[in-house]
Amino acid sequence: MTSAIQKPAELRQQARTGEFKSPTAGFAPGYLQANLMVIPQAQAFDFLLFCQRNPKPCPLIEVLEPGQREPACAKGADIATDIPGYRVYRDGQFVDERSEIASLWRSDFVSFLIGCSFSFEAAVAETGILLRHVEQRRNVAMYRTNLACAPSGPFSGEMVVSMRPIKSRDVARVVEISGRFPLAHGAPVHVGNPAAIGIADLAQPDYGDSVTLMDDEVPVFWACGVTPQWIAQSSRLALCITHAPGKMFVTDVRG
Amino acid sequence: MTSAIQKPAELRQQARTGEFKSPTAGFAPGYLQANLMVIPQAQAFDFLLFCQRNPKPCPLIEVLEPGQREPACAKGADIATDIPGYRVYRDGQFVDERSEIASLWRSDFVSFLIGCSFSFEAAVAETGILLRHVEQRRNVAMYRTNLACAPSGPFSGEMVVSMRPIKSRDVARVVEISGRFPLAHGAPVHVGNPAAIGIADLAQPDYGDSVTLMDDEVPVFWACGVTPQWIAQSSRLALCITHAPGKMFVTDVRG
Repeated sequence: MTSAIQKPAELRQQARTGEFKSPTAGFAPGYLQANLMVIPQAQAFDFLLFCQRNPKPCPLIEVLEPGQREPACAKGADIATDIPGYRVYRDGQFVDERSEIASLWRSDFVSFLIGCSFSFEAAVAETGILLRHVEQRRNVAMYRTNLACAPSGPFSGEMVVSMRPIKSRDVARVVEISGRFPLAHGAPVHVGNPAAIGIADLAQPDYGDSVTLMDDEVPVFWACGVTPQWIAQSSRLALCITHAPGKMFVTDVRG
Repeated sequence: MTSAIQKPAELRQQARTGEFKSPTAGFAPGYLQANLMVIPQAQAFDFLLFCQRNPKPCPLIEVLEPGQREPACAKGADIATDIPGYRVYRDGQFVDERSEIASLWRSDFVSFLIGCSFSFEAAVAETGILLRHVEQRRNVAMYRTNLACAPSGPFSGEMVVSMRPIKSRDVARVVEISGRFPLAHGAPVHVGNPAAIGIADLAQPDYGDSVTLMDDEVPVFWACGVTPQWIAQSSRLALCITHAPGKMFVTDVRG
């Protein structure tokens, strides 16, 4: 995927003005992109501990001080305006998708920036291994599983995973490469055997798009950054705000 | 160092009854040992964030729920009695050294278990590289530096480092080995040049014992688990409790 926008600050500025509204995959290549999770300070310790206990689905890039909107990983940025889309959840229910959250901002909001898989996907692509969803320009297939996350306070529930079909000869190499990117969810959590983690039908992902699994391929599962959103929903959190699917916060950190 | 006690649970039990009172280095070999930091829940988010922002001095092995005393990493253990010694700090001042903290325990106490360097030292020793302080049966030399930790809420201050003299030919290997143990502070933060990090005189460590630096050796500095104690002191934290120097919590985790 090619794009005119190469610089994170330029993309963030265009997201802020509303000029840029699309998913961020493929833009500002070489820079870390992050999932956003904003929750009130009252739940922040429990959620931070949840991330510490579940580093594979929730690898922390940065946690901002309560009320703060400019991350250290993106000088001059505003976390409340510089993402192309946001989602608001109340009592665990999705209630609103919006282009900014500055108008909802509170001084007790704590922002968590959580790694996403783009970095390791780029590293895999560089070795010449094609990833089906990238090739087909689809969103990656994601599934809720029966793998329990380590709970913390009110936060509990199952891990969400992303699945990529990988040729048997490439599985070990893809494990090694992704293992080098702990901020991008690291090595897979499960290889083959979807039923063993509670996935009944690979053709019906819970999020994203289904992709074809070829005869010489194994489904490989990685912990997914959608996990905290699902946990917030299943824990019926009173309020949380996230980025909209595929529309990530683009940092200035090389990744 | 040899010892009759090989099993973590046995050592913890003897620490609980008061039978075992000495430093824990060399006991229960092969198991992770941990620094303890107990602070009230009101400061727990800020301290957890401090650890997240400073993973080299504060690699988290586990954080217990408020009030909880049995860690997941040591079934049946009691964090308030199973360490051979504890230190109590009030308003940043050391006020008391005691054999248990059960009688001081409060339901809002949050316990942080932070990795220590024993695991990587054991791995280095296995390659045949001698560590001077182990050889001389001294405590490792530790120094306050001018390296600022990333602050979080009330927690701010400089990193404390441990120093080990390493032969020039072995420096790269020791870097590689220690880098494989992120829970034991990982790779060094500084190699050579003590003055550059604010250490005026290697012969006068701020904690532990000084060791001789030979002509063919370079002083190599690692982030040190004493850092959070120093931070609590320099931040004048109202109350915190730690293990006593060298008397660690011995976990059931192979490390």
